[in-house]
Parts: sequence; structure tokens; C-alpha cells
Amino acid sequence: MPLPVDAQPIDKRSGVVQRAFALLSAYDESHVALPLRTLARRSGLPANTTLRLARTLVELGALEHDAEGRYVIGVGLFEIAALAPRGHGLRRLAMPFMEDLGRVTGHHILLKIREGAEAVLIERLSPHGSEPLSFRIGGRLPLDSTGGGLILLAYAPNDIQEEVCRSFTPLPGYEAVQSGDDLRRSLAAIRQDGFVAARRSSPWFCAAVAAPIRDDSGAVIAALSVELRTDRLDNAEANALVPAVVTTARAISRRVSPGLL
Amino acid sequence: MPLPVDAQPIDKRSGVVQRAFALLSAYDESHVALPLRTLARRSGLPANTTLRLARTLVELGALEHDAEGRYVIGVGLFEIAALAPRGHGLRRLAMPFMEDLGRVTGHHILLKIREGAEAVLIERLSPHGSEPLSFRIGGRLPLDSTGGGLILLAYAPNDIQEEVCRSFTPLPGYEAVQSGDDLRRSLAAIRQDGFVAARRSSPWFCAAVAAPIRDDSGAVIAALSVELRTDRLDNAEANALVPAVVTTARAISRRVSPGLL
Repeated sequence: MPLPVDAQPIDKRSGVVQRAFALLSAYDESHVALPLRTLARRSGLPANTTLRLARTLVELGALEHDAEGRYVIGVGLFEIAALAPRGHGLRRLAMPFMEDLGRVTGHHILLKIREGAEAVLIERLSPHGSEPLSFRIGGRLPLDSTGGGLILLAYAPNDIQEEVCRSFTPLPGYEAVQSGDDLRRSLAAIRQDGFVAARRSSPWFCAAVAAPIRDDSGAVIAALSVELRTDRLDNAEANALVPAVVTTARAISRRVSPGLL
Repeated sequence: MPLPVDAQPIDKRSGVVQRAFALLSAYDESHVALPLRTLARRSGLPANTTLRLARTLVELGALEHDAEGRYVIGVGLFEIAALAPRGHGLRRLAMPFMEDLGRVTGHHILLKIREGAEAVLIERLSPHGSEPLSFRIGGRLPLDSTGGGLILLAYAPNDIQEEVCRSFTPLPGYEAVQSGDDLRRSLAAIRQDGFVAARRSSPWFCAAVAAPIRDDSGAVIAALSVELRTDRLDNAEANALVPAVVTTARAISRRVSPGLL
């Protein structure tokens, strides 16, 4: 006798939701529009399952068709995701301050949060005519590779810090940190200073100044950073930005109301 | 004999995905953090189904827990939704132009797309110290209630236009359009002019100037608008903005590459 739907084993039932998300996770920066066949291949699902799930997701607005009939991520998902407190919630609150910081400094302004051992870019403002930056909103980066990431790592739980420090491999041109022990010392210095000014000489000379954004309990929930291309590894230019970045991060922190994030 | 999972009726299988999205759709502007009980009530699902689905969605990053243990929309969903071509794709392309328009005019700048008979706000830039505007990114508005919405309606398929015109009820303070026939005439004028300058006297004096953004085939895919509070219904202030809005919308249109949207 067939089991009634509600009595099915939990893993079979949740499996369908997981397969639906496997479809949605088939998309990335280089794959924003997928024909059915590619969608099936990238999600690892049989063609008939893919078609059935894709149709359901189109009905729900999570997928939609582009002008060429390919499947793309739908505006319905954008609408739901706009309610993520750590996404648009934080962004809405931080944006006016980020605009001011961008006007004052003339550099890229980035807002990042931590997901496990990675940073997710929530918002980015880039000045006209600035050197292009490849970071994309919604994209992920290793915690040890950017100024904002180092802030998030410095205030991450110990096990995350240890995981990153243990598996650390030196980045080209990042002279200040060449080993896991260097990284541990940097993180301790960040907690001491309340900001980081990091410089790299490769793939090009660049610098980042970053500071933590805290909630009303004092917990670090995000990192604000200024990123600039520079033609030297001199400290003066980046150091001059520290007060502006730290005060802006504090101004945003004051706006984080209890229960918002 | 139980049916193998793959042979189950399609509506039973897709039902689980639909229930998962019923959970995600339980959130709105006034409900961004929900305890399990409220999540169950708002999604119309039994408590045990809600708990099971919510756990799955947490594993997938679509939901997460806030500091008080309530369920909120997760950053994982924000990451996937950031790949929606009509959401962040369009936004990324339009943003530098919107910033310029904001600086030149000093008013709110909005970017909207059409979903069925409603407008969805994709991006909004608001100047410091400007009168607050309640529109929220990811939020929906009727097509006949804003300048950007009128643009989207003017270029919508005939059945959508007719649906909105037939069910039109006059908005307070929107003197220029008092009937479905007035609305039809306005839409024809918009298609003739290529822009709209709309004014309302209630709930406060405000004006919007909006123009269409087109893809490379000439199809209207979005509306760009400037919204301002004003103390009179005089035409001069809004009319002075028309050239800036129209040229900015055209500049954005030039950037819409084939296959992007």
C-alpha cells in the first residue's frame, strides 16, 4: 500500500526541495542564462526531473525565460531575497553612509558579511572612472584575501579563524602576511586597532582600509571597506583614510536596531 | 506496493517545492523575522511540515536564524537572487547613470520593471535629507500609481493595459486621470512623447518624471524615474527634468547588450 504523502521518509521529501535548489545553484557569474540541457548538466539532475522542476520554479517566479527561451533566475526570487535582513536590510541602512564615504574618498566602497569561512559582498559603490574591480554583489571571496574579509575573520568564531590560519597559503604580493602565524598576528592586531589597512603589490598595487560594523550587542556583523588602486606601497595614502572608514562604520553601527539583523 | 519516488504523480512532487516557497512567501516588509508558529500560520502549513521544511531551507541557506532564534530570509537566497538578470543585472548596468542623475537633480531616482500588472522596484537612490519615500527595493506597486509604473503600463501587452484600465479607480489628488478612458489617453500620450511627467496633490504634492529603458530590440524592459516632493502643481519644475531623465534612460538602454536581459 502506498504511503500517504505526509508519512513519507523525511529525506525523500526534503530531497525534492534540495533538487530545486540544486537547479537554482547551477547559476553563477559566468552562467546567468541556461538552456534546459545545460541546466540539467550543471545541476546533476536527469533531464526529465530538471524540466519538471524548472517548470515549477517558473510558476513560482524563481526562474523565468529570457528572450532566447533560456532559463534565468527570476524576479520573484529577487523580491523574496530583498527581505533578507543581512542582505538588503543591512544595505538599506548602510547605503547613505556609503555614498558619503564614496564622495569624500573617491574610491570603491564595499560592504561584506561572513558566511562560514567566506565573505559575501552585499553592496558596492564604485566611482565614475575608477579602476574596475571584479567583485560582484552576491559574490563570495576568501576571508584572508581582502581588507573587509580580514575584519570579518578577526571577529569570527575561533574555529573559523583556526581553519583559515591552518590552511593559509601566501597570496602573491601580500608581503605583510606570509604564513598562518603572520595571519594570526594580523588578526590580533586588527582586534587591538579596530581596523585594518592592508596592501598588496600583485596582481597590481592596491590597498584596502576596513573597519567592523557591530550590532547593538557589540557583535561584528559586517565589514565596511574602501579599496583603491595605488602606485606604491607607501602607508600614507591608506592611513589617511582610516579615520573616515572607522567613523563611517561606527555611524552605521549606531543605526543597527535590535532585532534588525 | 509503494510507487518508486520517480514515478510519483507530478503534482505531489512539485507540491513540496511549492510548500517550501509558501514558507519563503510568508515574509513581507512588516514580517522579516518569524518564529516557527507565525511562519506556519502565515504560510498555511501544519507546524510539523513547517518545521521540517524550515530546517531544510536553513541547510540550503534560504532561511537563517536571527539573534533571537526566529527564522529570517537567508543570505544564500540573496546570493542566488543576485544573479537575476532583470534584478541585479539591470541594476549593475544602470547604477552609475542613476548616481549621475541623482547628483544632477538632487531627487529620488528609481528603477522599476513590470511583473504582470504590477511594478517591482529594482533600485532606488535617495539623496541625503530628502523627504522620505516609502518604496522599498523588491517591493511591488500598482502600475497606475507612479510615473515609472505608467511608463511600464504604456508599453505593456494590450491585455495588461486593458485589465488595468477596466479596473481603474481614481487615486486621490491625481487630477489628470479620473477614469479608465483618461488613463487610456494618458498611455497613448506617453507612447507618443516617450516620457511621462505626472503630478499628484494628495497625500502630498509630488511629481514624477519617467522614461522607458529599452533592450537592443527596442522592447521596453524597465522604467527610470525621478520623484520629488513639490509644494505646487506647476509644470515648470517637473518639465525641467524631462531632458535629463530621457537622456539618462537612453544612455542606459545603449548599455543593454543582447542576451543580458
